[in-house]
Amino acid sequence: MKTIQIGIIGAGRIGKIHADNLLRLPQVNIVAVSDLFAGPELEAWAAARQIGLVTKDSKELIEHPEIDAIFICSSTDTHVPLIQQAAEAGKHIFCEKPISMDITQTEAAIAAVNKAGVKLQIGFNRRFDHNFKRVREVVQEGTIGNPHIIKITSRDPNPPHEDYIKVSGGIFMDMMIHDFDMARFVAGSEVEEVYAQGNVLINPVFAEHGDVDTAIVTLRFENGALGVIDNSRQAVYGYDQRVEVFGSKGSVAVTNDHPNTAVVSTADAIVSEKPLHFFLERYQAAYMEETQIFIDCLLNDKAVPVDGHDGMQAERIALAAKLSSRLGRPVKVSEALALLQQSAL
Amino acid sequence: MKTIQIGIIGAGRIGKIHADNLLRLPQVNIVAVSDLFAGPELEAWAAARQIGLVTKDSKELIEHPEIDAIFICSSTDTHVPLIQQAAEAGKHIFCEKPISMDITQTEAAIAAVNKAGVKLQIGFNRRFDHNFKRVREVVQEGTIGNPHIIKITSRDPNPPHEDYIKVSGGIFMDMMIHDFDMARFVAGSEVEEVYAQGNVLINPVFAEHGDVDTAIVTLRFENGALGVIDNSRQAVYGYDQRVEVFGSKGSVAVTNDHPNTAVVSTADAIVSEKPLHFFLERYQAAYMEETQIFIDCLLNDKAVPVDGHDGMQAERIALAAKLSSRLGRPVKVSEALALLQQSAL
Amino acid sequence: MKTIQIGIIGAGRIGKIHADNLLRLPQVNIVAVSDLFAGPELEAWAAARQIGLVTKDSKELIEHPEIDAIFICSSTDTHVPLIQQAAEAGKHIFCEKPISMDITQTEAAIAAVNKAGVKLQIGFNRRFDHNFKRVREVVQEGTIGNPHIIKITSRDPNPPHEDYIKVSGGIFMDMMIHDFDMARFVAGSEVEEVYAQGNVLINPVFAEHGDVDTAIVTLRFENGALGVIDNSRQAVYGYDQRVEVFGSKGSVAVTNDHPNTAVVSTADAIVSEKPLHFFLERYQAAYMEETQIFIDCLLNDKAVPVDGHDGMQAERIALAAKLSSRLGRPVKVSEALALLQQSAL
Amino acid sequence: MKTIQIGIIGAGRIGKIHADNLLRLPQVNIVAVSDLFAGPELEAWAAARQIGLVTKDSKELIEHPEIDAIFICSSTDTHVPLIQQAAEAGKHIFCEKPISMDITQTEAAIAAVNKAGVKLQIGFNRRFDHNFKRVREVVQEGTIGNPHIIKITSRDPNPPHEDYIKVSGGIFMDMMIHDFDMARFVAGSEVEEVYAQGNVLINPVFAEHGDVDTAIVTLRFENGALGVIDNSRQAVYGYDQRVEVFGSKGSVAVTNDHPNTAVVSTADAIVSEKPLHFFLERYQAAYMEETQIFIDCLLNDKAVPVDGHDGMQAERIALAAKLSSRLGRPVKVSEALALLQQSAL
Repeated sequence: MKTIQIGIIGAGRIGKIHADNLLRLPQVNIVAVSDLFAGPELEAWAAARQIGLVTKDSKELIEHPEIDAIFICSSTDTHVPLIQQAAEAGKHIFCEKPISMDITQTEAAIAAVNKAGVKLQIGFNRRFDHNFKRVREVVQEGTIGNPHIIKITSRDPNPPHEDYIKVSGGIFMDMMIHDFDMARFVAGSEVEEVYAQGNVLINPVFAEHGDVDTAIVTLRFENGALGVIDNSRQAVYGYDQRVEVFGSKGSVAVTNDHPNTAVVSTADAIVSEKPLHFFLERYQAAYMEETQIFIDCLLNDKAVPVDGHDGMQAERIALAAKLSSRLGRPVKVSEALALLQQSAL
Repeated sequence: MKTIQIGIIGAGRIGKIHADNLLRLPQVNIVAVSDLFAGPELEAWAAARQIGLVTKDSKELIEHPEIDAIFICSSTDTHVPLIQQAAEAGKHIFCEKPISMDITQTEAAIAAVNKAGVKLQIGFNRRFDHNFKRVREVVQEGTIGNPHIIKITSRDPNPPHEDYIKVSGGIFMDMMIHDFDMARFVAGSEVEEVYAQGNVLINPVFAEHGDVDTAIVTLRFENGALGVIDNSRQAVYGYDQRVEVFGSKGSVAVTNDHPNTAVVSTADAIVSEKPLHFFLERYQAAYMEETQIFIDCLLNDKAVPVDGHDGMQAERIALAAKLSSRLGRPVKVSEALALLQQSAL
Repeated sequence: MKTIQIGIIGAGRIGKIHADNLLRLPQVNIVAVSDLFAGPELEAWAAARQIGLVTKDSKELIEHPEIDAIFICSSTDTHVPLIQQAAEAGKHIFCEKPISMDITQTEAAIAAVNKAGVKLQIGFNRRFDHNFKRVREVVQEGTIGNPHIIKITSRDPNPPHEDYIKVSGGIFMDMMIHDFDMARFVAGSEVEEVYAQGNVLINPVFAEHGDVDTAIVTLRFENGALGVIDNSRQAVYGYDQRVEVFGSKGSVAVTNDHPNTAVVSTADAIVSEKPLHFFLERYQAAYMEETQIFIDCLLNDKAVPVDGHDGMQAERIALAAKLSSRLGRPVKVSEALALLQQSAL
Repeated sequence: MKTIQIGIIGAGRIGKIHADNLLRLPQVNIVAVSDLFAGPELEAWAAARQIGLVTKDSKELIEHPEIDAIFICSSTDTHVPLIQQAAEAGKHIFCEKPISMDITQTEAAIAAVNKAGVKLQIGFNRRFDHNFKRVREVVQEGTIGNPHIIKITSRDPNPPHEDYIKVSGGIFMDMMIHDFDMARFVAGSEVEEVYAQGNVLINPVFAEHGDVDTAIVTLRFENGALGVIDNSRQAVYGYDQRVEVFGSKGSVAVTNDHPNTAVVSTADAIVSEKPLHFFLERYQAAYMEETQIFIDCLLNDKAVPVDGHDGMQAERIALAAKLSSRLGRPVKVSEALALLQQSAL
């Protein structure tokens, strides 16, 4: 049996999810895990999973001769150097989104990957969700004709902590980037122009860090379709993740998943369940599937389904949205980088 | 029993609907109907309803001493002079939307109404729809807290004929004006700024007349809320009329009405009914209710629920949207009229 | 214009509903109304509707030379003699369900109708409901193949008053009789055998009158299909009226109607509207349609869609259910009458 | 870390599912698997899972000194002797349903378990389904008051092969037994009496083996509630598994699970997904959970959630239903065994 040897850099929540998913795959072995804050707790966690090496130093993993692929689950600012090092070491890479908050850096990382000829998959987990996959399928089968209007709703149940807000890169780069990728995924076309509006309606802490907590972004696609994404950092009823594509021959819409189908009818009300609370619950199966597919791509030398280019395109749209929001006018994706460089923005 | 005597100007489809609804009210008598194309067919129609006077001349109605109120159901370009004449004659007025396509004219009409002290109700029928009324109620009761995001979907099953497209005033003034009114109705706040994008994706005939058939407009409200409206001239599955208001304490969403609740499950598919086909089916009860309430306002000297100011506000937003679409930038509602006058737009 | 002249016997709630529905039809004139308790109130009601004659004596209506058709809306015990008298007088008849609680009497009434050659329509209003009509259509079109299982849920929001319980004839004859008719309507086959179980779970007052408040009845149809009906006198969440037909090629199911489609999502719950409260709300359009169709049958000499035979079949099933419930065993519909006569039941 | 050593008897589809679920639990080790038809295929399957011992002889497992618990996944006729042997050997037992088709035998098996003081869990997997668990919770929390009506729909997508039909024990013992357990589970009360009707509407092969393919059974519970279960061996649209409990304060209803939430709207139809196809898809998580809970009961010496008594009660109801169906009359659960013994049934 062919076996893939894995090293995981960054043992936070998402790193641990990937680890446990990887351990469910018979062809995979996790050789090592590194984390800046490695200590007895992480060692116990690793021991329970028979992961032999725990270290603070990511280089130990990258240089480890037995490791075939690196999962980069550390903070966003570390992604680019780690991708570059891993690529140079000839390791395949799974990297969480975004690659970076600086498109020039992202380009450099992708160049390193291309030069080394390794695989790089970006963690746009939602592409592997049963609902969104079905939307894309229906669109690609032509059932709804040419897409005219794409609508994406994406609202978190709770805002992140202030510590995270500070370094998040802002709502467009941190949260809506998933929706920019989703827009490309379901529309089957590139985004040409965006117009972004945001506001601080939930918590003034967002304003203190130059961010917004509520945003609507309209999109114009190369194929002429129009799109709109709405984001909120706080939907009190739970994680709200819906997509609709409307086209010349009809529409396809998907809504939230729920813990069960119970409807309770009383003299007061007809009550159904709230959506699955947050991404860990909603995308549990999607996380499993993205991992499985990445491993399958390594085993069978296939192209990964979400690559560095996809990561960069989403970042470019996010940058255009950020600039649009600040400039108060629509911004072409193609002009975003130049605009950024020209201005003090 | 107090009785209201009515004259109807314009006996097209909507004029006839209002007539039949009025005839179901015991306190109402229709005295006369006028139409530029009055002839034997209209006479037969009127005779079957015991409407005594049929004429081509709207003045006969306006000057008729027994008539208390005029329903203006003729083409949009006739609304302003008819409102002015009816107001001067001391008649109450029910006028179809929009009052006009020229805000200066609309202001003049409203001034005439105010001077005469008559009532003027505008035919924003959707405010009387069971679903949208409930959205407003839920918002006003505070159940969902402060509105943050307002989403309105409004798609027609079929595009209008080219003859209509030519004179419609364009998608923003003709079709989306209903949604602009709806936005104000459910948000409980005025629209401050709009950004409109449109495209011709259904039929090039729209482009020939300087119009679009698909549009997305984002809104910024005075209370800080953000909004988005999407319009299509052709939803092949039927009339699509949905509203969602998302706020600090939750959301309220309404969807389409259907001819029945049947779900048919076979080896091929799980199939449910398409939405009620178009506005006549969907808003049948709403048309009845707007009429009933107008008559009630006359009988009991109450303020009408949708007045000239409401009509004008929707037109101002529509104008701003039209300008935004042409200028490719967001436009403040307050600057729209000046912008129009400055430019050759 | 051909005109049908109507007399209404019994001016309770249902008689008044029929009257107002009839008044909406241009070809109909209500000549007279009779009620045992006619007085100033009824006279005012009639005057407001321009009904000329108000009387305590139903004979005045039956013998009235101008009246074409009689609506019998008085208490069940009066139905048979009134049908007989009306038939002998050559009047067409619309009669509320059930014709009687005694099948021999019902047969006599139907015989009188047949002899006189007049039309008799029974007030099984649910056959005209948009949902149930669709179920029948889907079954008759063959979409679901041969029916195998028919399920009917029928629950009232509140139990009737004790005064009514006393004379109602019991749950099977008073309430479930609608469902027995529905079963025949959607299955397209006669009921051969029933097994009925009931219990008193809501209010002991039902037991005091030899009745039950909760019942489940299984049906075996001539075409081999099986069915089940469940009834409750008290569904605290509102009127619950659902039907499902399952067959060799699929199933069709209809559920309740609601006042609007609003879904309110908060931190507490996802809440939708309760069903339309009771039969007046739920079957408003169905009442209108059954009246309209009856008048159309008179105007165009068509066979009525629900005739005396339908009335009698439902009563026979109800009798079999009543006997089954008491005997604790399944009862064939064909043996019910003989069983009743043999026993002291 | 405490570890449970497992032996699996019967390596058919369900045995393999349990094995794979067990392997996902860190505290579990599968020592051995036995199957009458063990051969190279099973050996390969076992090797891939690092299961050391593969044998045709179940005794090797039962007598294996390291094994703590036995999963009995072999054919129904082997259950009782295997339970007895395993109990005598001091092994804990997980046994698929039904324990047997002979209540006297089932009693003997349970007696052996009780004598040995081992744990016995019966594979009523549906109790662990997210939907049905929620129904029970809502009932037990008192939200819907006292249960009045329990409705269970359970329809398979395809009939089994004739080979299986021959030995299945009939629809009541093989298929509806799950629903009898569900009825007890959600009602929180024992079934007192049943009335069963069946028919052969799908395939005459059922009649050839004295079985039916379509059945409706009504239930009377000790607490006065009434219930109804409908079964079909062939729902062409997929596995149909729904439960509703209606009570004095309201109702709770659960419906099917679907592969995704997509709704596709075209000019032809509004189409949603068919239910998850069959039990493997629908109850995947439930199978995992019943295994996990069984292991937890062993690790922490807790009482199992579905024990031998539950298995026997369901069998007794199934027997009563079978007798009722043949005798054409209601049968008390308490009289079923005596009835069977008295008669040649």
